[in-house]
Amino acid sequence: MTFTLSTKATASAAPYAGLPKYHFVGGNIDEPSVPADDLADAMATVLKREGTAMGKYGMNSGPQGYLPLREFICSSLAKSAKMQVTPDEVLLTSGSLQAIDLVNATLLNAGDTVIVEAGNYAGALSKLRALGVNYIGIDLDQHGMKMDALETTLETLAAQNITPKYIFTIPTVQNPTGTVMPVDRRHQMLALSKKFNVPIFEDDCYADLIFDGTRPPAIHALDTENRVIYCGTFSKTIAPALRVGYLIAPWPLMGHILPLKTDAGSGALEQMTLAEYLPKHFDAHLAKTRPILQAKAAALTAALDEHFGAAAEYDPPIAGIYLWVTLPKSVNTDRLFTVAAAQGVVINPGSEWSVDGPANTHRIRICFGHPSIDTIKDGIAKLADICFQEFGVPERSGNIERS
Amino acid sequence: MTFTLSTKATASAAPYAGLPKYHFVGGNIDEPSVPADDLADAMATVLKREGTAMGKYGMNSGPQGYLPLREFICSSLAKSAKMQVTPDEVLLTSGSLQAIDLVNATLLNAGDTVIVEAGNYAGALSKLRALGVNYIGIDLDQHGMKMDALETTLETLAAQNITPKYIFTIPTVQNPTGTVMPVDRRHQMLALSKKFNVPIFEDDCYADLIFDGTRPPAIHALDTENRVIYCGTFSKTIAPALRVGYLIAPWPLMGHILPLKTDAGSGALEQMTLAEYLPKHFDAHLAKTRPILQAKAAALTAALDEHFGAAAEYDPPIAGIYLWVTLPKSVNTDRLFTVAAAQGVVINPGSEWSVDGPANTHRIRICFGHPSIDTIKDGIAKLADICFQEFGVPERSGNIERS
Repeated sequence: MTFTLSTKATASAAPYAGLPKYHFVGGNIDEPSVPADDLADAMATVLKREGTAMGKYGMNSGPQGYLPLREFICSSLAKSAKMQVTPDEVLLTSGSLQAIDLVNATLLNAGDTVIVEAGNYAGALSKLRALGVNYIGIDLDQHGMKMDALETTLETLAAQNITPKYIFTIPTVQNPTGTVMPVDRRHQMLALSKKFNVPIFEDDCYADLIFDGTRPPAIHALDTENRVIYCGTFSKTIAPALRVGYLIAPWPLMGHILPLKTDAGSGALEQMTLAEYLPKHFDAHLAKTRPILQAKAAALTAALDEHFGAAAEYDPPIAGIYLWVTLPKSVNTDRLFTVAAAQGVVINPGSEWSVDGPANTHRIRICFGHPSIDTIKDGIAKLADICFQEFGVPERSGNIERS
Repeated sequence: MTFTLSTKATASAAPYAGLPKYHFVGGNIDEPSVPADDLADAMATVLKREGTAMGKYGMNSGPQGYLPLREFICSSLAKSAKMQVTPDEVLLTSGSLQAIDLVNATLLNAGDTVIVEAGNYAGALSKLRALGVNYIGIDLDQHGMKMDALETTLETLAAQNITPKYIFTIPTVQNPTGTVMPVDRRHQMLALSKKFNVPIFEDDCYADLIFDGTRPPAIHALDTENRVIYCGTFSKTIAPALRVGYLIAPWPLMGHILPLKTDAGSGALEQMTLAEYLPKHFDAHLAKTRPILQAKAAALTAALDEHFGAAAEYDPPIAGIYLWVTLPKSVNTDRLFTVAAAQGVVINPGSEWSVDGPANTHRIRICFGHPSIDTIKDGIAKLADICFQEFGVPERSGNIERS
């Protein structure tokens, strides 16, 4: 029979057909780095000790998730991000995507306005579009969101009697630009949040992946007035398929969020396993994986330099799993995406990762965490070939003129 | 600061304060039955074999979830429910609640009409209310949804040019009545589905828990025209805190559902562990746990007989983890719930588990899967005391007049 769909339904997705050979998209990580054996050992320990608690929803911890993992998150964020948080302010979620969905459901109605960074996580923007929310992009520079631009926008909105529902920011390893916001700018954002009475929603999903291990205090850590909602994840540090993220919010806001988490809890095995694994292994695991990501980033920039030369501009990567690359304006990356995907090379076109799509059609986001170094080298060479065939740039590969 | 909430937000929930001593609510199960050691062994095997695949979203299986678990579900349902399903029709979800949410998001808009059973899972009804959907309850008898009542309702709606979006049914171990719909009535429902062009949404979450192990074919199994959407779960058979359910839908409907699952997949550890554990252990595990649930059901009915006598009416339990109990009409179970909860005895008041709440304020749902037999005995005795103090019934406890 034919089903009559809701207005929320989109076109039917295609059945899964496997990943392309050169898969430079998605928040995937280095597979050999996933600590599968240590996770297995942690899981065996915790399951044999208290696995039968899974016989009830929430185990012994209630709807906010396994208490020992919430406790670890608090102690870890105190050390790494200078945050002071108690376990009752932490909600474990099915990835940070669910955290974003919950904040949006709790705060946003269609027609509301929010502030975002002009270059942005495509998934966050598409969620806002689906909700019918107006989002206004604030320009970025090499230090993240520009505070003069933010203030001007907030003033303009205030003059129209519009109070945005939140300022969404990825201050540490911004997505897609990879920048890290300095501390003084974080203080400025808090001051503007106060002046215009707009909360901040801080997404800190990549903050553990700064290659040299330094990490500024979270905006949440500098806030003394409960004006920051915060989310994080273990997707980028342990494994994305685990689907364990967390949302940090003050009460009573947390109490408004909880009834909207209608899934009766996130998976117990992930929560229990991470709670057992992380206290012993997290710091050492990060110390081991950061150089691996850094080596992949170096392979990517070397390949771009070799095959695109001056045609590919980027800031040197200092963190994370993606690079934001500017190509000559003659390159339309929406088209490059389509042509390259047909040949097994998948990248993110800049238009999808920007509030102003048309202004960014000469940019691409390249995710380097998952492919091997050899795959990065081969894939970028292939991408350069395709780009040349379509757009005549880059004109040279290494020292050799293309033809 | 004060956050301005969306219209979807409810009153703030209270912080978790632990479970009450006599906890007769929720889809919890017998804790000692959770196969924690076997799950730990299965997890160690699968993680050491292929755990690094968690380095990418969807592992090697794409957005519908770990393929070996989808394959097991197909083979298991073929055997137990006579269903013919392929893995590409199966979507693994974070519990069957997410399956319900996804079906609702895909099919329902505010103002739409759906058909439900008059006694119903409170969570399903509250989801429909939150969506602004009109639901119409169909009366139940000892064989489940009454087909004459269903036909009359569908005719009435058709006369108003209303085509319901689906018929939601729990045919096997109906919630809360515990009935099992005979095969002929399943065929009748399919005929009505066809006659009025209304799909069926079959929730089969308890079907593995029929005490004598018999299970009729699913409605899905009798359907030759792709008119049934189906969901199931391992919450009630393995452990609720695992949060592994599944949704079965034909293509292209599945393709419309997938984009609305915005969590980038459900937890990998649960999926991998179950896929490793279930083929070897599922049947034996069910054979072991059914008698445990049956013994608890017997303890519950014995306690009701002893402490409530004729004041508590129920159909003898044949399955599942809950009993639907009718008390004298003088008992208001909304009030009983409040008074008993304050004394550590928590039951579901009938009004919340019914489309027509006021007609069911003398009924309660008692979940017996989680508490021990001693807790069941003590809790029902205490409930009878409280009920007598508030309402003067039951007048006798055993052979002794209350005072």
